[in-house]
Amino acid sequence: MADRDPIEHLISLLSRIPGLGRRSARRAALRMLMRPQEAMLPLAQALEAAARAVRPCESCGNLDAQSPCGICRDPRRDRHLVCVVEGVADLWALERAHAHQGLYHVLGGVLSPLAGVGPEDLSISPLLARIAAEGVEEVILALPATVDGTATAHYVTDRLKPAEVAVTRLAQGVPMGGALDVLDEGTLAAALRSRRPA
Amino acid sequence: MADRDPIEHLISLLSRIPGLGRRSARRAALRMLMRPQEAMLPLAQALEAAARAVRPCESCGNLDAQSPCGICRDPRRDRHLVCVVEGVADLWALERAHAHQGLYHVLGGVLSPLAGVGPEDLSISPLLARIAAEGVEEVILALPATVDGTATAHYVTDRLKPAEVAVTRLAQGVPMGGALDVLDEGTLAAALRSRRPA
Repeated sequence: MADRDPIEHLISLLSRIPGLGRRSARRAALRMLMRPQEAMLPLAQALEAAARAVRPCESCGNLDAQSPCGICRDPRRDRHLVCVVEGVADLWALERAHAHQGLYHVLGGVLSPLAGVGPEDLSISPLLARIAAEGVEEVILALPATVDGTATAHYVTDRLKPAEVAVTRLAQGVPMGGALDVLDEGTLAAALRSRRPA
Repeated sequence: MADRDPIEHLISLLSRIPGLGRRSARRAALRMLMRPQEAMLPLAQALEAAARAVRPCESCGNLDAQSPCGICRDPRRDRHLVCVVEGVADLWALERAHAHQGLYHVLGGVLSPLAGVGPEDLSISPLLARIAAEGVEEVILALPATVDGTATAHYVTDRLKPAEVAVTRLAQGVPMGGALDVLDEGTLAAALRSRRPA
């Protein structure tokens, strides 16, 4: 490792970044090597700082430098309203839409018999515990409009039946098969506004 | 800086990588944050190591962890043959084509009256000094087939006239207006093989 070519090593790690192929990684490395102080050291420090500080929120599963996360700590958020998402990418997408004033709950995936993902692999029991403990009045299921996402929404709705809580889901308007985090903010906000009983 | 959100800061630095937009940077950050030990710390260390170690070769201008660079030190390279390139990206492209057995000389750009790049901004005097000092017998001009690249080739050819050295250039075959570092290796190798007097 000590005598590995540092340029080749850097290119090989850069090319693992989603969205960068080998050729883009080479070009990026070269551009950065032209200005190491401005382009490389700040990125190295940011990576280290984020890797050290960022962890999943013990309450909702969001990623943040503090736990509970900034959203869970924010006194202006409506604690009676919890939006359930597949992952942090979807949470971030909803935050960018500025359409949800409540809290979140990150499931950590959706049910997928083919991929071997069962209920015990998702954060469903912690969701039930939160609802009981925190006086949640409405759970919004913001799950992807895929087969697995829809099945997961049905499953979670069933599990929530014993709790005294309204369960809603995003309005139709989310394109079939579409992932939440690539939707435009307007569509996301509209779908959130016209949510309806599950 | 200390209390800046480490995730937002990381995304903002990642989005400056050529080839990554804001959306890709966000996705990349999230994917890396899922596996900080495997995906973030090694990249941080590689960036730091490269920023610390890599510098321009004092002889040819290539970027390497040592100076003179690995190519200039390699006893198997033909020291009588020097290939002149615009930048390190083109040097790397020629190396990937495995078509050149000599050394290189990085000009650091091409002449561009519009951009205010004159001969004194390029590594032309050091090239003349190398030819005199190192017994170079042939200079291959591997400059881009653009207006500025062609003008630069003519200018360098003129400056090399007093020296006892053959001056050749890459064969036609390089597409007009094309950059060397995005060419396929086969075309590059063919153009190098059929080089002809300037």
